[in-house]
Formats: sequence, C-alpha cells, structure tokens
Amino acid sequence: LASDGSKLWGGRFVGDNDPIMEKFNASIAYDQRMWDADIRGSKAYVKALEKAKLVTTDEMTQILQGLDQIFEEWSKNVFVIKPGDEDIHTANERRLKELIGTPAGKLHTGRSRNDQVVTDMRLWLRDAISTLTDNALQLMSTMVERAAAEIDVLFPGYTHMQRAQPIRWSHWILSGAIAGTPFDIDREQLRKDLEFDGISLNSMDATGQRDFVAEFLFWASLCLTHLSKMAEDLMLYSTKEFSFITLSDAYSTGSSLMPQKKNADSLELIRSKAGRVFGRCAGFMMTLKGLPSTYNKDLQEDKEAMFDCYDTVHAVLQVATGVMSTLEIKQSAMTAALSPDMLATDLAYYLVRKGMPFREAHGISGKAVFAAESKNIALNQLTVADLSAVSPLFESDVSSVWDYRSSVEQYSAPGGTAQRSVAAQVEHLRTCVLQADPLTD
Amino acid sequence: LASDGSKLWGGRFVGDNDPIMEKFNASIAYDQRMWDADIRGSKAYVKALEKAKLVTTDEMTQILQGLDQIFEEWSKNVFVIKPGDEDIHTANERRLKELIGTPAGKLHTGRSRNDQVVTDMRLWLRDAISTLTDNALQLMSTMVERAAAEIDVLFPGYTHMQRAQPIRWSHWILSGAIAGTPFDIDREQLRKDLEFDGISLNSMDATGQRDFVAEFLFWASLCLTHLSKMAEDLMLYSTKEFSFITLSDAYSTGSSLMPQKKNADSLELIRSKAGRVFGRCAGFMMTLKGLPSTYNKDLQEDKEAMFDCYDTVHAVLQVATGVMSTLEIKQSAMTAALSPDMLATDLAYYLVRKGMPFREAHGISGKAVFAAESKNIALNQLTVADLSAVSPLFESDVSSVWDYRSSVEQYSAPGGTAQRSVAAQVEHLRTCVLQADPLTD
Amino acid sequence: LASDGSKLWGGRFVGDNDPIMEKFNASIAYDQRMWDADIRGSKAYVKALEKAKLVTTDEMTQILQGLDQIFEEWSKNVFVIKPGDEDIHTANERRLKELIGTPAGKLHTGRSRNDQVVTDMRLWLRDAISTLTDNALQLMSTMVERAAAEIDVLFPGYTHMQRAQPIRWSHWILSGAIAGTPFDIDREQLRKDLEFDGISLNSMDATGQRDFVAEFLFWASLCLTHLSKMAEDLMLYSTKEFSFITLSDAYSTGSSLMPQKKNADSLELIRSKAGRVFGRCAGFMMTLKGLPSTYNKDLQEDKEAMFDCYDTVHAVLQVATGVMSTLEIKQSAMTAALSPDMLATDLAYYLVRKGMPFREAHGISGKAVFAAESKNIALNQLTVADLSAVSPLFESDVSSVWDYRSSVEQYSAPGGTAQRSVAAQVEHLRTCVLQADPLTD
Amino acid sequence: LASDGSKLWGGRFVGDNDPIMEKFNASIAYDQRMWDADIRGSKAYVKALEKAKLVTTDEMTQILQGLDQIFEEWSKNVFVIKPGDEDIHTANERRLKELIGTPAGKLHTGRSRNDQVVTDMRLWLRDAISTLTDNALQLMSTMVERAAAEIDVLFPGYTHMQRAQPIRWSHWILSGAIAGTPFDIDREQLRKDLEFDGISLNSMDATGQRDFVAEFLFWASLCLTHLSKMAEDLMLYSTKEFSFITLSDAYSTGSSLMPQKKNADSLELIRSKAGRVFGRCAGFMMTLKGLPSTYNKDLQEDKEAMFDCYDTVHAVLQVATGVMSTLEIKQSAMTAALSPDMLATDLAYYLVRKGMPFREAHGISGKAVFAAESKNIALNQLTVADLSAVSPLFESDVSSVWDYRSSVEQYSAPGGTAQRSVAAQVEHLRTCVLQADPLTD
Repeated sequence: LASDGSKLWGGRFVGDNDPIMEKFNASIAYDQRMWDADIRGSKAYVKALEKAKLVTTDEMTQILQGLDQIFEEWSKNVFVIKPGDEDIHTANERRLKELIGTPAGKLHTGRSRNDQVVTDMRLWLRDAISTLTDNALQLMSTMVERAAAEIDVLFPGYTHMQRAQPIRWSHWILSGAIAGTPFDIDREQLRKDLEFDGISLNSMDATGQRDFVAEFLFWASLCLTHLSKMAEDLMLYSTKEFSFITLSDAYSTGSSLMPQKKNADSLELIRSKAGRVFGRCAGFMMTLKGLPSTYNKDLQEDKEAMFDCYDTVHAVLQVATGVMSTLEIKQSAMTAALSPDMLATDLAYYLVRKGMPFREAHGISGKAVFAAESKNIALNQLTVADLSAVSPLFESDVSSVWDYRSSVEQYSAPGGTAQRSVAAQVEHLRTCVLQADPLTD
Repeated sequence: LASDGSKLWGGRFVGDNDPIMEKFNASIAYDQRMWDADIRGSKAYVKALEKAKLVTTDEMTQILQGLDQIFEEWSKNVFVIKPGDEDIHTANERRLKELIGTPAGKLHTGRSRNDQVVTDMRLWLRDAISTLTDNALQLMSTMVERAAAEIDVLFPGYTHMQRAQPIRWSHWILSGAIAGTPFDIDREQLRKDLEFDGISLNSMDATGQRDFVAEFLFWASLCLTHLSKMAEDLMLYSTKEFSFITLSDAYSTGSSLMPQKKNADSLELIRSKAGRVFGRCAGFMMTLKGLPSTYNKDLQEDKEAMFDCYDTVHAVLQVATGVMSTLEIKQSAMTAALSPDMLATDLAYYLVRKGMPFREAHGISGKAVFAAESKNIALNQLTVADLSAVSPLFESDVSSVWDYRSSVEQYSAPGGTAQRSVAAQVEHLRTCVLQADPLTD
Repeated sequence: LASDGSKLWGGRFVGDNDPIMEKFNASIAYDQRMWDADIRGSKAYVKALEKAKLVTTDEMTQILQGLDQIFEEWSKNVFVIKPGDEDIHTANERRLKELIGTPAGKLHTGRSRNDQVVTDMRLWLRDAISTLTDNALQLMSTMVERAAAEIDVLFPGYTHMQRAQPIRWSHWILSGAIAGTPFDIDREQLRKDLEFDGISLNSMDATGQRDFVAEFLFWASLCLTHLSKMAEDLMLYSTKEFSFITLSDAYSTGSSLMPQKKNADSLELIRSKAGRVFGRCAGFMMTLKGLPSTYNKDLQEDKEAMFDCYDTVHAVLQVATGVMSTLEIKQSAMTAALSPDMLATDLAYYLVRKGMPFREAHGISGKAVFAAESKNIALNQLTVADLSAVSPLFESDVSSVWDYRSSVEQYSAPGGTAQRSVAAQVEHLRTCVLQADPLTD
Repeated sequence: LASDGSKLWGGRFVGDNDPIMEKFNASIAYDQRMWDADIRGSKAYVKALEKAKLVTTDEMTQILQGLDQIFEEWSKNVFVIKPGDEDIHTANERRLKELIGTPAGKLHTGRSRNDQVVTDMRLWLRDAISTLTDNALQLMSTMVERAAAEIDVLFPGYTHMQRAQPIRWSHWILSGAIAGTPFDIDREQLRKDLEFDGISLNSMDATGQRDFVAEFLFWASLCLTHLSKMAEDLMLYSTKEFSFITLSDAYSTGSSLMPQKKNADSLELIRSKAGRVFGRCAGFMMTLKGLPSTYNKDLQEDKEAMFDCYDTVHAVLQVATGVMSTLEIKQSAMTAALSPDMLATDLAYYLVRKGMPFREAHGISGKAVFAAESKNIALNQLTVADLSAVSPLFESDVSSVWDYRSSVEQYSAPGGTAQRSVAAQVEHLRTCVLQADPLTD
C-alpha cells in the first residue's frame, strides 16, 4: 500500500474482509458430518476437566445438558448453522454458549482446536470403518454362500486372459472374497489407534501427523483396486463372446441409442472408483509432503478426502454385494469353454508320474499340442499311436487324462481347486465372516 | 438364483431395483451444472436436424421455444428435477416432452448420449477456462503493477533456502507472475478443440477419449504447483525470523489457543490445493488406464474431477490475487538481511575482470570468505592488505564491490535483476495482460 | 558434538566425509547420458564468451579443440569417469582442464551449474522427442497402411464391452492411430521452448522451474494411457473367446507350466507401462510441490524420471509397431461375431425415415428385440407380420435392414465407418505422417 | 501378412524375433538381485519334492549340491548370465542343468514360474525390511540419545510456521523419532506374510495379487513423507534467518558460482525422495487397476519399484542418521528467538487459574498483546497497572508468568514438553530401540 493507504495495484479483495477467503477457509460445509463425534468428544473432555477441578461439578452438569440438547437438535435436523460458524467445533461451541452462557467458555480450557479436530476425526473414522467392515462382510458372506451353492460348476481358469486350466467357478469366487480381506486387516491396523488404548507419545506428533487418514485412504485404494479387478473379470465373463454370466437388470442399464444393448454399468462404475479413491490418497500424500512439523492449515484437506473415500467404498461394497448376489451363471457356456488343450499340463504330469523330469515332459506335451494342431484335431483326439510317436511312455491309460473333473480334483492341496479344497475355503471364510461380524457380537 | 427363483445366498439388493445402484449410477447431482451447455448444444443440433430434413421447420420452432422455456426455468432456479432424471440430458429432454409433446422425441435422432455428454463438457469447459484465464490475468496484473511500484526495493535472493545474491523484490514478484503463464498456454492448447474449428477425425475416438479433461486436470495441477511454491516463499518471508512481509488481516486468522498468533492460513490453503488438484488428475488417469476403446461408464468420473478442479483453481487464483494485492513489505527488514558475503561472487568477478579464470577467482573469493570468518568480521571489513594476501590482484578499487545496488545493476541482461531489466519485464507482462485480457476484447 | 569433539550420540557417519552422502548426492551415474548435450552447450557458450571479450580468440580455440577431443573420447567409449566427478558437467570440465590447462577455468565465467543443467536437459530432450516422434510416426504409418489394406473387413464395434454396431476393422485401427497423435501435439507444445526461439523472461524462473520436464512426463503418460487402452482391446480380441486376431510369435511367449499356452506378453507389458510412466510424473509433481523458488537440490529428481520415461516410451512405441505390423486377423471369426441384434438401431432408423420420432422408434425396436428373444430366434428372423404387430409402419421393405455392409455404409459422415469415410481418414493420416516425418525433411 | 508371406504394411520388426521385444520382456537386468532368494527357495522346494516322492533322495542330493555351487558362483561374482536367461529363475535353472544334467529338469515339477517369482520376492523383501528396520533403529537411536543429551535446550515451537510456544529442542527431536515408527509397524504388518506362518488360502489369489508389494511401497512413502517434513524443519532452522542449527560439512555442499554458500543438499535430497517413492507406489497401483485376476505380465512392474524404493529408503535413513548425528545446535540463537508474546497463552492460563473461563481469558490475553503492540513494547514489559486496566484479576504475581522455563515445565502430562515428560519419552523410545534391535537378538 502507498503511504496514504491508497491501493497502487488494485485487486478487488482489499477490504478487511474477503468473502472468498472466508469461504475458502471455512470447513463447516463438509465437517458438520462429525457433529456426533464432536459432541461425544466434548462430553468426555468436560468430565476430565471436572476431575482436574478446572470446572465445578455444577458447571460440568450444565455443559453436559447443553451438549445433549445440541445432540437432539442435530438428530432432528433442526440445528441452525449461523454466519461465523466456520467449522463444526465453532458451531457447537457457539450454540452451547447460547444455551448455557458463561460455563460454555470453560469447555475448551487446555485443548486446542487441532486436538479437537484430530479426536473427532478418529472417533468418526472408527464408526465409519465399522460400517465398511459390515459392508465387506456382507459381500464376503454373499460370495462364500454362492461358492458353497455352486461348487460343482467348472469353467476355464485364465492367465494372461488366455485359457489355462479348468477350475471350479467357486474357486474364482473365493479368490475374490479373499482379496476383500485386506480391508479387514485395515481394521486391525487401525483398531489400535482408534480404541484409544494408548496415548500419543509426543504432543507435537499427535496434532501434526495424519497417518491414520493416509493409511485409511491407502487401504481404501487397495480394497477398490481388488474390486476393480473382480469387476474386470465379470465384465469379460458377461461379454457376448464369453457369455459365462448374466447380470441382473437391477445392475445393468440400456443404451439411449441401441435398443438391444444391456450394459454392465454397475461393474464399470466399480472399476472406475479405484482411480477416484487412489487419487484422493495421492493428493493427500502430496499435500503432506514437505510440510513443517505440527499443525499447518494444509491438513484441512484431510476431511473431504476421508469422507469421499468412505462414501465411495460404502457404495461400491453394497453394489458389489448386489451384483454378486443376483448375477446368473450360464453353466452350459462355461462347460463349452473347456477345451482339451487346457489338459496339456495334465498330459505332462502323466509323463512325470512315469518318471520323466518335468521340463522334458513339458516339452513332450508341447509337441503333442503341436501334433494335434497340425492335424487340425483336438488334443484328446490324438490316438495312442499319435502320442507314442512323440514319447514311448504314452500308453492306453493316457485316456484317463481327458477328464476335466478329475483334472480339477488333482489340486486338492490347501488353496487348490479340488472340491474338498474349495469346500475347506468356504468353511474357513464362513468362520471368518461369523467371527468378525459385528452384527453377531 | 435357484430354479424356483428363490435366492440361495441372500443379499438385500435382489429386487428389480436397487436404490443404491440407482444413486451410484445417476450423475444429475453434479452434472446439472451443465444445464446451459446442454440447452445450447441441443439448440444447435435441432437446426442441423432441420437442414437434414429429419425434423420439419415447424417442429424445429417448437423445440427451440421449448428449450428457451427450459433455459428460463433454470435461470430462475425453478426447474424441478424429478425421479428418473438420471442426468442433466435426461432431465432437459423429459421436461421438453412435457412442454411440447411428440416433437421432443425427435431431438435425439442420430446422436447418442455419449456425443451429447462430450459436447456439453467441451462447451462448459470452454467457458470455465475463460473465467480462469480472467482470474489468472487479474493475479498477473496485480503482481505486475506491484512490481512496477516497488521496483527499488532490494532483498536477498535465496537458493537452497540460503542467502545467495541481492536481488530486486520486483524480480521475485515477476518470477511468480511468469510462473502463472503456463496456465495461459493451457488455454491456447485447448482453444483449438473447444472452438470446434475442426471435426473429430474418428467417431470411436471422439466419444471414447477424454484427453481434453486429462489435459485440463494436469494444467490445473501445474498451475497450482507453481502457486504452492509462491505460497511457500511468502510463508518463509512472513515468519518472525524473516519478517520481510506482513499479510493483511483479511488473509490471516488467529489461533483458538494462542492469543498472539496470526497465521497465514490463506497461504497454507493455497499450498495445500496443489495436492488436491493433482490427486484428481492422478485418479482420472488411473481410471482411464487399460479401458477398452469407445465409451465405458468409467468415464463418468470425468465430471466431478473437472468441476472440483475448476472450483479449486478459481478460488485459489482469487485468494492469491487478494494476498498479493494487500500484503505489506517491510523494507527495512529486507535491507537488513543483505549481508556482505552475498557479494562474494562479485569479488570473484572483480578478479575475472583483471584476467583471472573464473574457477580460480571462485577459489580466491572462497579464501577471502574464510579469512573474514576466521577474523570474525564481515567480508567487506577485510582490508586491502588482508585481500592482497589472498591474491595480489586485489587493489584499493576493490571497495567498489561493496555496494548492493551496483551489484544488482550488473545483471542487466534480459531477465536479470537490474532496474531496467526488471522494468522491461514489467512492460512485457503488462502487454501480455492487456492483449490477453478477454475483458478488453 | 560435545565440546571435546567426541560424539555423544554416535552414528557412524560423523567424519568429514560420508561415502553414502557422496553417492546420494552424485548424479554422474545417470546424467552422463547428456555428455553430448553438455559439450554442445559449452561450445556455444565459449563462443559467446569470446564475443563478450571474456576469453580471447586463442583461448576459445583451445577450449573448442579440448571439447572436440572430449567428444571423441565419449564417442569411442573411452572417457574415464574419476572419483570426484559428481556429475557430467564436472567430469567434462575436469577433463578439459587436464587437456588444455588454465583456459579451461574460464569456460564457466558467468554461468552457474544450474544454468548448465537446464540447458543440457533441454538440448537432450529436444533430440529425445525427435526420436520419439519418429517412433510414433512409424507406429502411425504401420496402422494407416494396415487400415488401407484391410478396409473391407467388418466386425462388431463394442461399447461397455458389449456388441454395439457393425464397424470396419480399419475404423478401429484408425481410432488407435489418432489416439497416438496427442504425442505429436506434445512436440508442438515443447518445440517453442526447445528451439530456443525466445529467451527466458526471468532468471529466477529459468533455473527454478521444470515445467518442460513435468509436461514431458505428463504427455508421455497420456500417450501410454492411450496405448494401454489399445493393448486392452487387442488382448480381448486375442482371447480364445473372441479369436479376432492372432499375435505373431515374436510378440508372444509360452508358459513355463502349461504347454498349450501362448501369452500376449507384449500387450500386457505395453498396458503396464502407463502406470510406470505416470508414477514418474506423479512422483516428480509431488517433489515439486511446495518447494521454495529458484534452485533446490530436490530438482535433481528430474533427470532419472525424464530418462526412464524416454526409454519406456521409446521401447513401447517400437514394440507396438511390431505388434501391429505382424498380427494376423481372423476374418471369419470377425464376421461370425456380427449378430442381427446389432442392427436394432437400424431398425429404429427405418421407422424414423417413415416419420416416427426417434425416441418412439427406439422403443418400438426394443420391443422387436424382445419379441425375437421371446421366440428364441434372431432379430432378422421375425416375419413382417411379427414386426407389424409391433408397429404398422413395418412393411416388406424392412428386409433391406438386415445387411451389415449397408448398415456400415450409412455412416458416411466424416469420421464414420463407411468405406469412403475410412478411406478419407487413411488419406488424412497418410498426409500427417508424411508431413511430420522428420526422416523426409 | 499377405498369403504369400510378404509384409503389406512394413514395420521393421516382422521377423520371428524382435530384439527390442526380447529386451522389453526380459527382467534379468534387475531381478538378478534375488539370486540368493531364488536358490534358497529352490532348496526348500526340492526337499518337498523328495518327501512327495517326485524326486529320489539321490536326485535331491544332486540338486542341492548343484544349487550350492551356483550360490558360490554368485557370491564370488563369477556367475555368467547367458543369452536366453530372461530372468534369474531361468538363469539358475539353466546353470543347474549344465552342472548336474537331467535331474535339474525335475526341480520345477508342479510349480509355475509365477509361484517361484512371488516366493522369491517375499524372501528378498523379508531380508530387505530387516535391513531397513536396522537403519530406522539406528536413526531413532541417534535421535533419542541426542534428545537425552540436549534435554535442557529451549527454543520456539512453531505452528503455521509462526512462533507458538516455547518447547524443548529434545521434544522436537522426539516428535521426529516417533514419526519414524510407522515404518516399524510396517514390519509387523508384513512379518505375518513373510514368516510364511500361514499358507495362502487360494491359489489364484496367491499368484495374482501383489498386496505385499503395494503395502511395502506405501509404507516406504509414508516413512519418507515423515522424513520430508523433518528435513523441511531442519532446512528452516538452518537458514541464516533462523540460524538454530549448522549442518556438518559432510552433509553440505558448496556452490559452483557463489563462494560463500553452504547448501543443505542432504536435506533437500531427503525431502525430494518422498515424491520419488510415492511415484513408484502410484505407478504400481495404476498398473494393478483393472487387471483380470491371476497372473498378468503387467505384474512384472513390481520388482523395479520394490528395488528402487528399498534402495532409496536405505540411503535416506542412513543419510538422515548422519545428518542428525553431526549437526550442531546454536543454543544462543534458539534462546534469542524466544519472545514474550509466546507466553500469551500462559497469561490466559493465569486468569483461568483465577476462575475465568478460558474463552474469556483468551480474549483478555489478546487485548494485553494488543496493548503491548500499541505501546511498542514487549508483552512482559506491561506493568501490573497496564494489565489490570485490561482485567482486574491481574495482580503482581503475574510476573511469575514471564519465565520460559517454568512455562515449559507446565506441560508435564505424558507427551508434553516438560523435562520429566521428555525424559520419559527418551526412556520409552530407548526401550523400543533396544527391544526391536535385530542386532541385539
């Protein structure tokens, strides 16, 4: 400013008060979601103040009653946010003062806004994770029961998007259900923090770090990355070319242009959300990078990221549960997709059982595949003569190889695709769901 | 489902209709921002239909009148969104049918929803970029005029956060103003697309790619990364220890705990937003990765990302303009921070001018710095005797080196920190602002 | 340290010299790639010094000869890096001093290491982009010529991974070729900077920003994101279930376990690289965030990111060219995948041409699709009687609809899938390749 | 290809063999780092084969001896990689066959390359994390001992980069040491997997997911983000303006241009690496997104990311240890930076102790700050009369407030900055280091 106070370089925001700055600074639009956590935190805190004789018992009672009334107002959706309520903490405190007067001013003795923000976020996130865990269990449970019911369906396992070996459909389902569990580990990871079992070791560290948010954002990303992969599989399986499954109409939409189309929008949306959630994680990590220690206003980015990831994961898990619960499998198409060349590994194992080293057997089997291709016939149509031309170890008992179901039954080690192995996975996961299910606690 | 239609594995979303899926699928909550673009696009399209004789002139007139009325309703904020309006395009078409009946159904002959979405987004973004360009010019203009007015103030230039050489304060300001220009390039980059000067070369590519969104998100990120760096400098300069500047109260806030604090929240928020915006870019790129060609519902993530980045950049540019327009510099502190060791390079140049290779002169000057430190005196307090002990080339005229202002004046090459060089930058940028300013078009 | 110099808290790196720090600090391991650019830059700079009379003509000659010899040593791979050569600039300068003695020390008069680094990077990147542009043109050219040769092949167009409408195979190829062009825009974007047509406007900005690197990393990411999408399409098309294409053995690999497998590893690697390159971009943006202005050592991250992205894009473009050049299409499978329901939009257009609004026609056509499904017959097997039960507008001329080739020919607008429209795209892109090809300059 | 085998559209890679594809596909250049893990894994596997009677005891012995010899060759750096050795697994198997002939081919019976890759990576990462944990403990130990030795030094605590309240220097050090611990949690997180205590639940999930890599990359990012913040603090503290610390020469570098400069390059490099490592995490997550289940070649991106993050964190932790171990504090500058206004919160607490609600006391203290500023004197220079004009509760005992050391001693709650509280943190962390230290196991 020039010495006479006039503005030399203009700009329209030079008053005492820039409304854009106020809006830029305020967080009430999104942090009001934590109204409940804020009240719970304050109720606990006033009791500590009373013990420390910083408020009298009478003042504590007034404050508690005031907070209960504010709780009522929020519950009934009648709480009125006023100009100046820049965040949920200010709003609740302002209202408390209106309700009980002077004692309200004592509630914040010895705790900073930053303490309060962090505590509220941890309380809110504890509840949020509990809900997400329920959602995840619902999804797991649906998948596990579906796997149990459809355990006898075989179809091609793919690697590199190419048919590899026959597997059980239930084996595929359970590989998805297990991939869901990282999210559950998340809960274990966070539980320690959130149960407040311990205390923060260092006051500077407590208000200035947001590891619990960053970790939540990352676990949400990893969880949705798994679901993006499951969605990709299901989209493949629902193409006309694969035709292994049909999505329920409730999770499909039509085309505005092409009358015959039925699109798997639900799966595409699930796949898309991994990017969204990881973007939040990436953005928050970038915001954290290079900040000086203790609180900086930059940390305010934590809340919208946390809320958006919660909402997204919450919706995705429910829609995924709906999709998995209602899709129909087309068993005949699955069976038709099993082709004899998928038994080429079994053909090699046949030779291994007759004493040939695997690498050699692999080569022999490859030659058999080539022989069948040359004759333009399926692998199992090679005669014993054809085969013994490739290796004298082939004998008439080679015909036992050409059975998809017995091929599958070979993989009876834990984690394999044999009937009893998949059944064991079902049992194991059922127990997990049962034990973890907060609804049954 | 079991053959009798009963659900074997439960899940609560198995009806024809999952309300969570509907909400998950609908975009009306955020894409209604494009109501204006949608109407403009449809008005243009119906004219094309009339030319192609796919609607009659009379039908075209009815449709245009209907669209004008819908425009009125949105303008006056009385348009009512109804259940089933899953996006802005459906909502406007549904309303058109209510208003004019049958001819409404002809409006979408031969264009798909995807065409419409992409066109609307491009129209909306063209306007949005125009606003952001205005904001950027406002910021540049403020910085340029400030640089012009305060051209005579010197202060330390820093590299590696360490005092390097004396520079003009205006030189620093303009380095920020220039950093703002990438954003302007952005506009050039996008203009070609958005002016619709050309046509899409390939129909599959036109609906399935979102390069214009990805590029916008990246340019927004680069722009805010520059502003995060400017904010970091200003925060340093406003620490008690530097005390080079004071922020206006309008862009500062107090502490809820510490009465004496005045925090530069505006700068911290500006710094934080680079992460947020880049997170959107990162998320969208991840969403795009590996999608099959043409339209996939995953692309629906484009809109919230685009809107959020627009809103964020819009606010940041305005707050940055306010900050730069109202901060006060403390010239005495700036001058006090200039120290003789910052002229050590000039001392080397003194020797270069007497014929010594620079590398050698650099070493000699370093020895002089060490000599002064050993005697615990400032570099300019070394006597000619002290200096000639280090190199016989030092003579009494070395005293001319110890002048900050003449040191600065040496850098008169374009882009340098000499008065006339900085003045030239001011003129150049003034012209840029003037020529680019859409307000003056 | 305690006053007696002993270490109170240990740590093994307390000498004058921490070898880990030296290695951490040094960049010679990767920046030696810029040896050529460094020499070119120095040769230009010494000429400027001579003009400014800061070196004599004789000194300039010695320096130029010394630099030429260093060029020879690098070219012949005999340049020896010595301890203390922390970067390519130091190494070349050290060697120059060994070769010509004192005058070498004058080469760096008035330019800082940071100037030199930025100049060398820009020179290197200019060459690198030129190579990548060649690679991109090679890929485009391959795709265009392939599209020209195979213009008569029809196959299903997909949206949402579901069959949509019949299109030309060449139309798909060209949608990929066009997606390659953003990279070309990139070159235009960067050319201005790299041709050094202008001068940096502000010296602080010139050394402290790395926009040209960040932009290159982003364009590389966008380019590979497009190629990840093309790779995804080709992987789908090469599944057993689609069987539209077969990859050449040169771009496939076998399985160590399953003898019959042929995996499209080349495509999977192409798809994977979008993540790698974008990770470099994300990392560098995060490194930039919140840095103070001018040079900070953090910027040293620029080089490995730039080199890695160059190497990756360079390899991906060449492999993609190889894949596109050698894959075989299976025309019979493509044709077999065309199904009558893909003509449902044409059925609606039939009604539109008889005067029905499109929205109504879309509904009628949907009913016809449903009628065919109910009867378990293909859409084109409905009799005129069946159809006129749905709408009286259907007459015997409806049979003209059931022709894939005439369906495709309808889309003759620019960018469409009709023969002449695709041929026009081929011609346009051929011209682009020809005009842009640096090899033909 | 045309039916006669000629190439219609050219491209130079159309032979059976594209060397660029081979290089693109091969991973031996970087995965040879896992030679040790690969041999250990194979030794364990052959024993399992013998138990399953798939190799004889004699064959097992030959294989084990062969593997031991390969171990020797790698240890002595004489192992020769040959053309065709596309990865470490192929190389070791090829060598085994050269050494022992036929039985070598039996080693891979029943395990796929993908099993082997994942096992080797887990083994390698277990060792790597053990080393990083050592590094982290070394850093923690250095910081804890330094905190113990310098516990009596006070200096300003900052929030928002503004002076807030006086704190102990040791309190700051420990806030960094604690921030290091998330890395330790990482180890716990991963230990379960890596000790192979359990078995993979599902074979498809086991080879197709890379959660353990993604989690490692994220923990590395979080760890370096913490260190980037510590580096930022130290850079601030080492500016001329703060002058709180001086870095050892071993961790500083000079300027090529400015002889007086001493740059904290070590800290800038530490700060920069958070971006690099997070970029690897972001890139890998993007690569994972949307992949079909089971193995896809895209997963090959895991190794370079894992190695690079390990190397980076390994170097950063060691350099950080060196920096923290050798920096000198300037106690006089720290003390001089304590200013009476930092006791304004204490002034409010003085009133709270006399019964005033905190919010009111905060306001009164703010008025006192303003009164001092108006008189242009320090806050502690206000007379009792001045103060009682603001509030009658102020009496002569207010003088007790103006003592930095007693201010600090108030914060004696766990985690606070009082002497005994910081000493407790030291003890706690010493125990952590001791208990976790693998060196003492």
